[in-house]
Amino acid sequence: MIIKVLIGVLCGAAVLTVGILIGHYGITKSSGSAPSWVKDVVKDVDETLIERFLSEVDNIQIQENLRELTKVPHMATTAGDEQTVQFMLKRWQDPDSGLDQAWREEYLVYLSFPDPKNPNKVTVVNSSDAVLHTVREKEKPYTDDQKDPAVVQPYAAYSPAGHPKGKLVYANQGKPTDYEELNRTVDLRGTIAITRYGGAGRAAKAINAAPYGVIGVLVYTDPLDINDGLMSDTNETYPHSWYMPPSGVERGSFNTDYGDLLTPYLAAKEETYRIPVKNITGIPPIPIQPIGFEDAYTLICALGGKEVPATWRGGFNCSYNYGGPGFKNTSAFYNSDVKLDIYNYEEVKNSSNVMGIIRGSVEPDRYVIYGNHRDSWVHGAIDPSSGTSVMLELTRVLGRMVKQGKWRPRRSIIFGSWGAEEFGLIGSAEYTEQYYSKLSERTVAYINVDIAVFANATLRASGMPSMQNVIFQAAKQVKAPGLDSTSVYDNWKRYSNRTSPDHGLIPKMGYLTGAGSDYAAFVHYLGITSMDISYTYDRTKTNARIYPAYHTAYDTFDYSSKFIDPGFVSHQAIARTAGNVLIRLADSLVLPLICSDYAEVLESYLNTAVTLYEDQLKAKGISMEPLKRAVTSFRSAATHLDQVIRSSDLANETPLKVRRINDQLMLLDRAFLDPLAFPDKYAFRHVIWASSSAGKPTFPGLADAYDNANPSGQLSDWEKVHYHLSVLSQAIEGAAHTLVDVI
Amino acid sequence: MIIKVLIGVLCGAAVLTVGILIGHYGITKSSGSAPSWVKDVVKDVDETLIERFLSEVDNIQIQENLRELTKVPHMATTAGDEQTVQFMLKRWQDPDSGLDQAWREEYLVYLSFPDPKNPNKVTVVNSSDAVLHTVREKEKPYTDDQKDPAVVQPYAAYSPAGHPKGKLVYANQGKPTDYEELNRTVDLRGTIAITRYGGAGRAAKAINAAPYGVIGVLVYTDPLDINDGLMSDTNETYPHSWYMPPSGVERGSFNTDYGDLLTPYLAAKEETYRIPVKNITGIPPIPIQPIGFEDAYTLICALGGKEVPATWRGGFNCSYNYGGPGFKNTSAFYNSDVKLDIYNYEEVKNSSNVMGIIRGSVEPDRYVIYGNHRDSWVHGAIDPSSGTSVMLELTRVLGRMVKQGKWRPRRSIIFGSWGAEEFGLIGSAEYTEQYYSKLSERTVAYINVDIAVFANATLRASGMPSMQNVIFQAAKQVKAPGLDSTSVYDNWKRYSNRTSPDHGLIPKMGYLTGAGSDYAAFVHYLGITSMDISYTYDRTKTNARIYPAYHTAYDTFDYSSKFIDPGFVSHQAIARTAGNVLIRLADSLVLPLICSDYAEVLESYLNTAVTLYEDQLKAKGISMEPLKRAVTSFRSAATHLDQVIRSSDLANETPLKVRRINDQLMLLDRAFLDPLAFPDKYAFRHVIWASSSAGKPTFPGLADAYDNANPSGQLSDWEKVHYHLSVLSQAIEGAAHTLVDVI
Repeated sequence: MIIKVLIGVLCGAAVLTVGILIGHYGITKSSGSAPSWVKDVVKDVDETLIERFLSEVDNIQIQENLRELTKVPHMATTAGDEQTVQFMLKRWQDPDSGLDQAWREEYLVYLSFPDPKNPNKVTVVNSSDAVLHTVREKEKPYTDDQKDPAVVQPYAAYSPAGHPKGKLVYANQGKPTDYEELNRTVDLRGTIAITRYGGAGRAAKAINAAPYGVIGVLVYTDPLDINDGLMSDTNETYPHSWYMPPSGVERGSFNTDYGDLLTPYLAAKEETYRIPVKNITGIPPIPIQPIGFEDAYTLICALGGKEVPATWRGGFNCSYNYGGPGFKNTSAFYNSDVKLDIYNYEEVKNSSNVMGIIRGSVEPDRYVIYGNHRDSWVHGAIDPSSGTSVMLELTRVLGRMVKQGKWRPRRSIIFGSWGAEEFGLIGSAEYTEQYYSKLSERTVAYINVDIAVFANATLRASGMPSMQNVIFQAAKQVKAPGLDSTSVYDNWKRYSNRTSPDHGLIPKMGYLTGAGSDYAAFVHYLGITSMDISYTYDRTKTNARIYPAYHTAYDTFDYSSKFIDPGFVSHQAIARTAGNVLIRLADSLVLPLICSDYAEVLESYLNTAVTLYEDQLKAKGISMEPLKRAVTSFRSAATHLDQVIRSSDLANETPLKVRRINDQLMLLDRAFLDPLAFPDKYAFRHVIWASSSAGKPTFPGLADAYDNANPSGQLSDWEKVHYHLSVLSQAIEGAAHTLVDVI
Repeated sequence: MIIKVLIGVLCGAAVLTVGILIGHYGITKSSGSAPSWVKDVVKDVDETLIERFLSEVDNIQIQENLRELTKVPHMATTAGDEQTVQFMLKRWQDPDSGLDQAWREEYLVYLSFPDPKNPNKVTVVNSSDAVLHTVREKEKPYTDDQKDPAVVQPYAAYSPAGHPKGKLVYANQGKPTDYEELNRTVDLRGTIAITRYGGAGRAAKAINAAPYGVIGVLVYTDPLDINDGLMSDTNETYPHSWYMPPSGVERGSFNTDYGDLLTPYLAAKEETYRIPVKNITGIPPIPIQPIGFEDAYTLICALGGKEVPATWRGGFNCSYNYGGPGFKNTSAFYNSDVKLDIYNYEEVKNSSNVMGIIRGSVEPDRYVIYGNHRDSWVHGAIDPSSGTSVMLELTRVLGRMVKQGKWRPRRSIIFGSWGAEEFGLIGSAEYTEQYYSKLSERTVAYINVDIAVFANATLRASGMPSMQNVIFQAAKQVKAPGLDSTSVYDNWKRYSNRTSPDHGLIPKMGYLTGAGSDYAAFVHYLGITSMDISYTYDRTKTNARIYPAYHTAYDTFDYSSKFIDPGFVSHQAIARTAGNVLIRLADSLVLPLICSDYAEVLESYLNTAVTLYEDQLKAKGISMEPLKRAVTSFRSAATHLDQVIRSSDLANETPLKVRRINDQLMLLDRAFLDPLAFPDKYAFRHVIWASSSAGKPTFPGLADAYDNANPSGQLSDWEKVHYHLSVLSQAIEGAAHTLVDVI
């Protein structure tokens, strides 16, 4: 009986099992089984992969990248530049650690060079044209780097050639107010003005001068502004420290607008229409030349005339005088002129971007772009090769994961090694012009890492407020260089912080309001959510305007490895932080962009605007209510969208819902664009981040229009304020519409 | 035993069944069962539903809609307009056949009206100011419609008020060449010019006149241009036929630019910045007034001076003379002046759009917009209420399906009943300005049905070439009105056709190159793929410029039901065709937009441009190669994308792939926008469809720039040609980039 029961139970069990098997495998469920892509489309960022990435980023690899990139000077379109193109291509096409694809894209762009056969000269000449003093033509060599014949003579790119000769005057920083003030004391007609770097843009120092009859300009870096006052190369300056040697000269592009000057808003291809050279605006109308402070000392300390106000003084141990005009009668140069012999010439040359991609698996039509320029003025170990070394390390680690089949991002990643940035962000600008439509349609974010390490104290990050959270998140996961148990985030918060109404005490992020690096076209022309990060100074230790070797022949591997980031651990921290952000932007199911962080900034801008302008605007019959309503709409739409994201189980809903939300987040910045917002600077179309001369922490166009109308008092100027208020309110309302429920 | 076996078998079966059930329902398959949304996201358009829709569209419903809409005149912002607003809202908010949601949106817009207390007057006065003739102030009544006190006096909206008096001259159509020619014979200073409609825009007739010293303009509709020569209201004109009675006057908006004139590119809200009235451009600088041909006959036949050329003559049985200036000596008006007393005034008034939506189920963030204006000049039975009646029938049929839970479109549908179109497409333009960002980001297509039926002979369709196929497809499924076994498509092909390189003999579709109706802002400002359809004339039977009651007090239900579409079957055919297109755009898995049909048009434009311009451009050193390369890139990208769509099994691939392809198709037209393409007409930014004065079947900006440079021969004008060629080539390349593989 037991056996029978046993057999019966066993048979029953067997039949049950067969039934279960038939039921499970033999019958298709009415709803069907899940297609294979279901799993892929809901995949989120993989924290293990991020940890692996962080651990694989190697400081020594970065160091060796830098060594290779800085072997020779690589100014745009030179042989040295071409060497770096080849190096990038080799690395990005490497079968084991390269990208899916890499290639070069060329543009024919308008550049300006000194003539190697006729070097620019600055001399002091007496009335019989005898030369009393000649300004140094090349920087003094301390290592072999400075002796490289490819080191370009210091010059002001886009300064016209010419041979002005006249009495010297000192014009402080060359700001409009400086020339105005100087002109009250000295008749500036026919003079040469010497100015110091800072306060005004490079080109502006000459543009501001010309209306007063100034015929030539010199510019130098005052030791007070760059060297914390130090001047001696026997023990104080490089190679003894990071400070600029007396003969060091900051080169630079002396233009105002970014992008190729002959083809505004058109990609500079062979048969593209080019404007006549005479129609170029924003470049010096008179010759200008940068010189070292060694020579500036000789010239300035010999100047006659009245002593300048305290704010005009630099670090020289002599009286700064306006100039008689010209030199004082106790000087050997008395009655002598300063003469500029500028032989710069312009040439349309072929500049290359090097592009590389990792194709996205799930949303290949969404791009995260990561870029930096490749061209330097000389060896450019810091500017830009610190950033390029970091980028190459990122692509090595990510490329290897891709080649090994261990990873493929959800979205596509595009790497850009831009050409000719030093001449005016040209490579990146031309790229955005050529691919305007598809980049606008598809780009989730742009990450710019130009100078990766200015100094080794703390992180510095700037960007759209919606990027704040992902930068914080990434920085929290990276160890601060040189500190055992502190994160990059905590260290940053220690150096620079603010109290946010929404988040309390947090690190202070900057905004991308200017056109200081290749993010400019992405931010201001395309309205793409962008960020720029670097490691930077301890401001309690230096007042240097920027790292002292900037744009000089001393910005070398030797300098960087000794004085900027020995061991390259700050480079490594930037690679980890930027790479972490990159992976999160590329892999997250929901884009890690927090729109309510944007609302916080708009509210702060609004408060400032109300405080500064409302009374006066009311008096003029201009209401700020539409702007207030727009900011309120934005906040409410942002809060709601945040809430939808938090409360949705997006991994289990249709992937089209995630895509919809991501599109709202991606296109948020695009909504702030208005090509009519800034009639006199079309390259700036983002109403929140455009450049501004008002220097107020508020909406740039409103601040500038107000600053223009208030003194002038003209009705037409107040109308411009009102107009801009309407443009601004409509753009913010438009951004709010992008965030509210789609229908 | 049998029982035991039976019990055993039954038990076994029961156990097996339990097992099957457990296996099927109790255990999740390793791959997971398909989430419920999988079925929804791959759903394609349902042909049964389309058949149902077609069968439910009812001609009598359309007729009754029209009867209701045309009870009283409904000029923009009048009480009659408000009645139609209420009617639309009632219908769209109907619980059984309404939309998901409907509401009104208001704009404060700048309009122009005659003064009811001081009607505009046109008189002939002799030298002692005695009135010899007074032009009729209102049209002659034939039915009660014309007697309605709300019938607005014929006037020229935006004509300035004023009281010019002078000798009369005849200026043909008021084109620049007409005044030039006339000025060779007559001193035009101080004269009043009478012109006929046609040949030039309304405002242009006055704008072109003023530089010659003309001080006032009259405009009338010549019987030759509108009535096939017929003139008599005893038996030839309405109410005896569709022809315009002698006192009929075409009203109209006499402006050049579309959208509210005081708030260009800004939505006209209460506190929006408004430009000073004196800064308005494109409106008549001198008074102008439209009159009937009855009065025009009296004036023109009395003119002195030389006889005009044959092409200037209209249908009057008298000699058309230039004017002495003034009347001939055999006329009772000899030596008399014509005097205009124009009392038009401008006012900022509240105009409403009525908006309604059906929310999309799968992609609510993709919009198909269907619109028409609501405002008329008088009763507007044809313009625009034929279109509104059709729209209301569409929303009734679709709304009912939605309310009954039988249908919900994949994408969202937005219906727009625009206000103040007659004054310059104002409601639709303000809407696109207010919602610029989200409409640009999300709109798949815009369908405009303004005048649904001009006449009952054949379909007429205009639109972007990528829409051609879906229009054809829809037209093939609709029976041509009045023809038993012919489709709308076949009937259309019989009336108007072309031989396409890709498709052979097909109906000829038009392009949306002008700003004739509310599609303008969608096409030219937002770059949204659009179409406009109607039923229209048999051109072998009439040469009328347009249906003869256009903008007169005779455009009534009586007129339409007797002479335009008795039985409303052409209205029904338009409702079926447009609705079919609408459903396909809203429901298709892959958007029914064929990009290679766009390539065909670009190639045809290129061929024309090469034939017309290449030799001369070469001689000027301007290469057309970049344009040729761009068109080739476009064709190749379009062919490839078509091929990807055809060869993919999209219903079984990730929905993000379909979305990606749909985004490429949706954004194609956006890529043709360039805000810098037409510096003097910013509202036109689509480089392929912008308005053009050259009248050549090629790229509008190129043709206009060429036509400007060729006679002038100035270098700067040839540079503009070159510049536009670069803009155009870059835009077409950009469109190609939108279509090629995304990465």
